[in-house]
Amino acid sequence: MTPGDTSSVAGAQPSQVLLIDCPDRPGLIHLITGVLLSHGANIVTNDEFVDSNAQRFFMRTEFVEAAAVESLAGELQATLPPPATVRIGRAGRHRIAVLATTEHHCLGELLVRHAHGELGASIQAVVSNHSTLSSLTERFGTPFHYVPHRGMSRAAHEDALEDVLSRYELDYLALAKYMRILTGSFIARYPHRVINIHHSFLPAFAGSHPYRQAFERGVKIIGATAHFVSAGLDEGPIIAQSVVPVDHSWRPNEMAQAGRDVEKIVLAKALKLVFDERVFICGNRTIVFD
Amino acid sequence: MTPGDTSSVAGAQPSQVLLIDCPDRPGLIHLITGVLLSHGANIVTNDEFVDSNAQRFFMRTEFVEAAAVESLAGELQATLPPPATVRIGRAGRHRIAVLATTEHHCLGELLVRHAHGELGASIQAVVSNHSTLSSLTERFGTPFHYVPHRGMSRAAHEDALEDVLSRYELDYLALAKYMRILTGSFIARYPHRVINIHHSFLPAFAGSHPYRQAFERGVKIIGATAHFVSAGLDEGPIIAQSVVPVDHSWRPNEMAQAGRDVEKIVLAKALKLVFDERVFICGNRTIVFD
Amino acid sequence: MTPGDTSSVAGAQPSQVLLIDCPDRPGLIHLITGVLLSHGANIVTNDEFVDSNAQRFFMRTEFVEAAAVESLAGELQATLPPPATVRIGRAGRHRIAVLATTEHHCLGELLVRHAHGELGASIQAVVSNHSTLSSLTERFGTPFHYVPHRGMSRAAHEDALEDVLSRYELDYLALAKYMRILTGSFIARYPHRVINIHHSFLPAFAGSHPYRQAFERGVKIIGATAHFVSAGLDEGPIIAQSVVPVDHSWRPNEMAQAGRDVEKIVLAKALKLVFDERVFICGNRTIVFD
Amino acid sequence: MTPGDTSSVAGAQPSQVLLIDCPDRPGLIHLITGVLLSHGANIVTNDEFVDSNAQRFFMRTEFVEAAAVESLAGELQATLPPPATVRIGRAGRHRIAVLATTEHHCLGELLVRHAHGELGASIQAVVSNHSTLSSLTERFGTPFHYVPHRGMSRAAHEDALEDVLSRYELDYLALAKYMRILTGSFIARYPHRVINIHHSFLPAFAGSHPYRQAFERGVKIIGATAHFVSAGLDEGPIIAQSVVPVDHSWRPNEMAQAGRDVEKIVLAKALKLVFDERVFICGNRTIVFD
Repeated sequence: MTPGDTSSVAGAQPSQVLLIDCPDRPGLIHLITGVLLSHGANIVTNDEFVDSNAQRFFMRTEFVEAAAVESLAGELQATLPPPATVRIGRAGRHRIAVLATTEHHCLGELLVRHAHGELGASIQAVVSNHSTLSSLTERFGTPFHYVPHRGMSRAAHEDALEDVLSRYELDYLALAKYMRILTGSFIARYPHRVINIHHSFLPAFAGSHPYRQAFERGVKIIGATAHFVSAGLDEGPIIAQSVVPVDHSWRPNEMAQAGRDVEKIVLAKALKLVFDERVFICGNRTIVFD
Repeated sequence: MTPGDTSSVAGAQPSQVLLIDCPDRPGLIHLITGVLLSHGANIVTNDEFVDSNAQRFFMRTEFVEAAAVESLAGELQATLPPPATVRIGRAGRHRIAVLATTEHHCLGELLVRHAHGELGASIQAVVSNHSTLSSLTERFGTPFHYVPHRGMSRAAHEDALEDVLSRYELDYLALAKYMRILTGSFIARYPHRVINIHHSFLPAFAGSHPYRQAFERGVKIIGATAHFVSAGLDEGPIIAQSVVPVDHSWRPNEMAQAGRDVEKIVLAKALKLVFDERVFICGNRTIVFD
Repeated sequence: MTPGDTSSVAGAQPSQVLLIDCPDRPGLIHLITGVLLSHGANIVTNDEFVDSNAQRFFMRTEFVEAAAVESLAGELQATLPPPATVRIGRAGRHRIAVLATTEHHCLGELLVRHAHGELGASIQAVVSNHSTLSSLTERFGTPFHYVPHRGMSRAAHEDALEDVLSRYELDYLALAKYMRILTGSFIARYPHRVINIHHSFLPAFAGSHPYRQAFERGVKIIGATAHFVSAGLDEGPIIAQSVVPVDHSWRPNEMAQAGRDVEKIVLAKALKLVFDERVFICGNRTIVFD
Repeated sequence: MTPGDTSSVAGAQPSQVLLIDCPDRPGLIHLITGVLLSHGANIVTNDEFVDSNAQRFFMRTEFVEAAAVESLAGELQATLPPPATVRIGRAGRHRIAVLATTEHHCLGELLVRHAHGELGASIQAVVSNHSTLSSLTERFGTPFHYVPHRGMSRAAHEDALEDVLSRYELDYLALAKYMRILTGSFIARYPHRVINIHHSFLPAFAGSHPYRQAFERGVKIIGATAHFVSAGLDEGPIIAQSVVPVDHSWRPNEMAQAGRDVEKIVLAKALKLVFDERVFICGNRTIVFD
């Protein structure tokens, strides 16, 4: 267990997490808890949710003392109505790469948390299309890979990126202000495994200078949204959002600083939820058992 | 079902709520869901929580289609480890009295929501130690009782209050800025059935002019706390809290207005949670399944 | 002064508000405060702001004891660089009409505040294209006008609306969930005098069932924006915004309730800012001296 | 100017900040702006506030192009009613030491911002009564001083601390979760120059395990307060506060993590306000021109 795993009570036997996603039907909780009991598993916490539109059932169970975790999952898989997903979670054992460009705020936040065991995952490498953040990354003893995109086709750049990433075993990619759009075919290699952060405004602004636009429109709130990246969609399922108040006297650069502060906290919070195995995806929504 | 019951999906069969509070032990969820299944109950939503300090198990289940609700509760009561509380909730059917003094903001909020079926309960009467709010109350066709306290002992005033309240069948008392301290013996007649709202500051201020003190201390946040009233305690289990930002330029009366705005929303939110049967009490804490 | 004017200190001489909007140039504050001094005006509070893009200067001054307010304004108008707007504010003396449709939450909020002198303006009438809210309005002794739109052209309906409104002397129109789009020619009769509230989401949703869409997208935050209505624009200058957190377990109707709660508070807050003469408009932005 | 000074517009002439605190009387703004004009100073932004209780006037002016800043300040000092404080601010040029104990979150936040020029001041050294944070500090090339307190009297430890601090020219001390109480005589060496962060709860909790108590009390909100440290007071003037929502399912360690997240953002925000010369102190309140 990494030092970042704060989800188990100090001194207690580490708990395991069972994750189930299957079609809804009466009696599921009774059935599942029966299988858990028969394996000697003692439930610590339990969350269920039925998405009544999708008619799907979601359950997250933390348990201790199960004798044979593999056979537990296998028995559930065989018993539940198909198509069912049954997983034993890997809370605290995920390996990730962080992709960044030139802004340090999100990467710095993740590196400091990682250095102190609070990230909930292990950063294997930082990859950037600029060399700007190599110094910050190396302060923390983390490998930094500079994969420039200048003068390359998008496909060639993504091949170079994939070439670096493939040297590691990775569960998730965290886009920490990575300012390149990734193609659907790249994203498809990491289904529901790429997490992004972006600023959010009311109303929304398209284009390249959002804080300038937010300033000119006189918005009173600036926010950030962390979400899974979906191929073929501008934006995938939302994991976490937050906002901060601003007013007419904030210059665009002050709005941008406030935006960076909220972005890094929301990204770290969303990643922790994912790494603690608290997030399910249902269509374009998330179910977050926090 | 009152029009305020927004917890059932329009057009669907109304759901019922099962509420269980008992000592924790392995296998409880399996046992309870088995009894529900055997009565033909179909679970719509389910929430459980184990308070690991108190070693108690809490469960809230919305279900439809159960044949015999009375025997369901009886069978569970007989089966669960004692001391267990098993209840079929009364969401949307609670009757309440509102106690107020002279401030209108909380009472007005409750009366408007009630008039439009959004309170989640039925206001039987408004009782006040001043006559100030009679006009507002009577605009909404609700009985108003003026129970003055001047020149009376605390015991005599509470007897007069109880005399009025006893004319109604009441599930809860909502203290909507009722500015008299109720004695432990009065509160004991309504165990876990009196809900209060008060302003909250960081740091806390004792004494009679809190907004003046908050101003002099230059607080940057003003809040409100809704809580159950406990005999012998300054303050019982917290149900809901919220805050709003203020700054040095706010005069004490402007801080007080901001305080009133947040108080009324927090009180209405806390009452709705209680009336929708979403709140359990465990020692001096609440478990809120929202 | 209406009882709603909370901006003057109890017992003190009522202050007046001077509002200036003119091209920026060096020395303006010195010039303006000199004219104030020469009229015996004593400044209570003073706010200035320069919009460096627009190169315009905004100043709001509360003062007491000026001998001749009319000549003060006249002298400033003659002295300041043109085009300048110099106004003595009407804080607490504005007259408004409220336009609503069938939802009661915003209208009820305004009526309760008005009944207790906290709105900061006087509601002359409520006008609606449905009769639903007549009962709520009449509880407060406020005239209610039913101006149906069925079977009428947009122009004919707006003529009927204007016919009713023209019976009153009105400073502002508050759109309290008025669900009809007003034409540019109607809005042009009330330049910068129509204030609207609408729900706000991250991301934004177009179309007729926004809470259904917000639910399906799994948003984690629901907000509201109060703004001036501009002819020819979807949305005019923003006055105030706020948000509340939601999660996957909120049904669309629960999200809608949360949205209503935040809408009514934001609308009341925005109106109070406008009625207290704290809001300037600069292009598509507001300057809010709060 | 350090790269952290974000308060000047890129490319523009750097602005200077004039700070005035004097007894209130009519005509002050006119008088001060007259002196500024006569020195050729062009006002960029201007904020004033009168504390009507203390009868004191506060003004913060950003200006450009003044010929002789020293004589400007001298002339104002000679002209304003005594006792007056007139200062030309040092935004972006402050030198600080950070005091910490074993928790990394606040220190890490300050070091990362400092490394990227966003702190608004220059960290000269980190001093701690434990050696825990030496590695984090040294990653950023900042001197770390370990000043243990074990086996020493409080006076002896503070002498050792002062011995280290006196090697640097320091404008402020930032207490970044420094868990030792500093004596009045130590604080008196840095009047209004020591800034602290602490967790804040509604209600407040005394004692050594606040998050355990907050958990047991079932609070729904966790906050942080940044404030100046005053000799002889538990708590000096508040600079900034913020909160985050929690619920019954948060374990004490999860509440503590949420508390750390809000603490570090509030501390960094408060320091930036102070370093940008936006904070005045008036008795036990701050005036924050943000």
